[in-house]
Amino acid sequence: MQNMDIDELVALMKKRDRRATSRLISLAESDMAAARAISTRIFKDTGKAYIIGVTGAPGSGKSTLVNQLITLLVNKGKRVGVVCVDPTSPFSGGALLGDRIRMKEDYPPGQVFIRSMASRGKLGGVARATKDTISILDAFGVDIIIVETVGVGQNEIDIFTLAYTTLVLLAPGMGDEVQAFKAGIMETSDIYVVNKMDHDGADRLVGEIESMLDLADTVEMDHGEDHVVVEVRKQVKAGWRPPICKTNALTGDGVDALWAAIEKHRSHLTKSGEFARKNRNKFRQEIIDILREKFALHVEEALDLTRNGDLPALLDEIAARKKDPYTASDGIGKKIADAFKS
Amino acid sequence: MQNMDIDELVALMKKRDRRATSRLISLAESDMAAARAISTRIFKDTGKAYIIGVTGAPGSGKSTLVNQLITLLVNKGKRVGVVCVDPTSPFSGGALLGDRIRMKEDYPPGQVFIRSMASRGKLGGVARATKDTISILDAFGVDIIIVETVGVGQNEIDIFTLAYTTLVLLAPGMGDEVQAFKAGIMETSDIYVVNKMDHDGADRLVGEIESMLDLADTVEMDHGEDHVVVEVRKQVKAGWRPPICKTNALTGDGVDALWAAIEKHRSHLTKSGEFARKNRNKFRQEIIDILREKFALHVEEALDLTRNGDLPALLDEIAARKKDPYTASDGIGKKIADAFKS
Repeated sequence: MQNMDIDELVALMKKRDRRATSRLISLAESDMAAARAISTRIFKDTGKAYIIGVTGAPGSGKSTLVNQLITLLVNKGKRVGVVCVDPTSPFSGGALLGDRIRMKEDYPPGQVFIRSMASRGKLGGVARATKDTISILDAFGVDIIIVETVGVGQNEIDIFTLAYTTLVLLAPGMGDEVQAFKAGIMETSDIYVVNKMDHDGADRLVGEIESMLDLADTVEMDHGEDHVVVEVRKQVKAGWRPPICKTNALTGDGVDALWAAIEKHRSHLTKSGEFARKNRNKFRQEIIDILREKFALHVEEALDLTRNGDLPALLDEIAARKKDPYTASDGIGKKIADAFKS
Repeated sequence: MQNMDIDELVALMKKRDRRATSRLISLAESDMAAARAISTRIFKDTGKAYIIGVTGAPGSGKSTLVNQLITLLVNKGKRVGVVCVDPTSPFSGGALLGDRIRMKEDYPPGQVFIRSMASRGKLGGVARATKDTISILDAFGVDIIIVETVGVGQNEIDIFTLAYTTLVLLAPGMGDEVQAFKAGIMETSDIYVVNKMDHDGADRLVGEIESMLDLADTVEMDHGEDHVVVEVRKQVKAGWRPPICKTNALTGDGVDALWAAIEKHRSHLTKSGEFARKNRNKFRQEIIDILREKFALHVEEALDLTRNGDLPALLDEIAARKKDPYTASDGIGKKIADAFKS
């Protein structure tokens, strides 16, 4: 019955029905079984959209810049999808308590599809749901998908694996901004954007990024075993030194040049064979995300099952220091393995 | 053999040997089997230290405030452990490229133990490793453990589950700081700290937080099913309205009052029975973290095993849109289940 509904929705989506598309995204987001049913039906229609990641600290002007990019693309006659996984973005509805929406543009109907992800209250499902949303928008037929995410923590690695071109936004006068970014996000960037180019310190910020890129070219850093970071280093070695674009997202200054840099990167990916490698890496990560969410669901199930059974007693034993958490986790682990098998 | 080493190290740790303690933390951090061996030996000696979480955006002054708290506690004759999972903190060695250390204090030998966590390049192991580090420091015999983490993304929820008292730091003049925090972290706070109290806008920031707390008291929000958020709401209903402390971490102004607020919260937890409930929640989350890391290891293993076998062919099939990622993940899922069982 649910599968029948999905069949109908997919058929409508192929006729460019926005509401059906929106409904499919909601289904995929909330229910992994539905996501699977959708993916098996639409996956063959994906692979056409170009995916751009935009990341940066709150206050760097991400949403304003995304607005400018949307306008530029709409003027070029492109269909644009925006996926927002940034809890601080006005696109995503932003904060909890009745944020005003700062988005100013009204886009022509049918050409722009903006979707925000519910990133809260999920056990590892955001990455998986984001990728399913991108696939649905891709099959829906947008040309460009912009994924906006706040650039701290695991997000920066996630966005690197799902986007073909990742923009990292920085702005002068944000205190320790370079400090904050150095420790991870900087390396995931294909293009640096120094926004608020009219503010004091913009050129100094450009200089700092240049210095870091110089260092990164020469210094061999110890990154441990992380697969994604290894990928980044391969990319650097594959001959792309990230350019630095200065923009003023409020006025639109520098946005054309930024778009030119994005197109240059896209062309570099294709010519160098990096595009195919990025895709393989993306799919590898997608498999991990699917398995991880499946696992998280089984953990919740296993803990739920024991909620009125073993769990309270187990937690009491830990609290009394009669059992350590590792020993306590064994029985639950066995239940999860059984669930994974079935 | 390894277990013998761990026995020796644990014996040395009990005699307050710092190097042995440091070695145990490194072992637990890098190898879950070692972490398990350590936990089974020391867990009965834990539960004595009081755990304080400090979180906030980069630039809010977290490390400077932690410095002040360490000094205050040392002057009270307390032994202090600091665990830093903030990639931007000077305690953690901060950024990649030769950051200067901004930490100014020298502490009396034996009274302060600072440990930074390698938060990068790990598949889900940070939360588990952080908890093991806390347990080791607890068994080592520190009185207070301060956990510093950057307050974005999953961290804010993690810190809430592991600390008894969580401080959320904000500072005026950081742009969209309240915007940024509203969407998640604000609710995890037991005490708000408005740092840089001498800066313009400090009082307005206090007012904004007050307004949000007023709203949170009256508005019923849709948080989905997230266990931790449900816990937060229970806490609010259990009769603790988070106070707002103003500090100047550079001069130390307000730090005594902040400590008084922490002690008041500790006393509230004990009297209300929340302390026991927080502990149970912490152990529940710890079990999940252990299982999650075990799972992540098995995923890596399963993907490694197939690296020269099925995986490249599988990724090719996905890239050619012959197989969707869900279908592709099935075989790997079965291998993981087998590994979990064994």
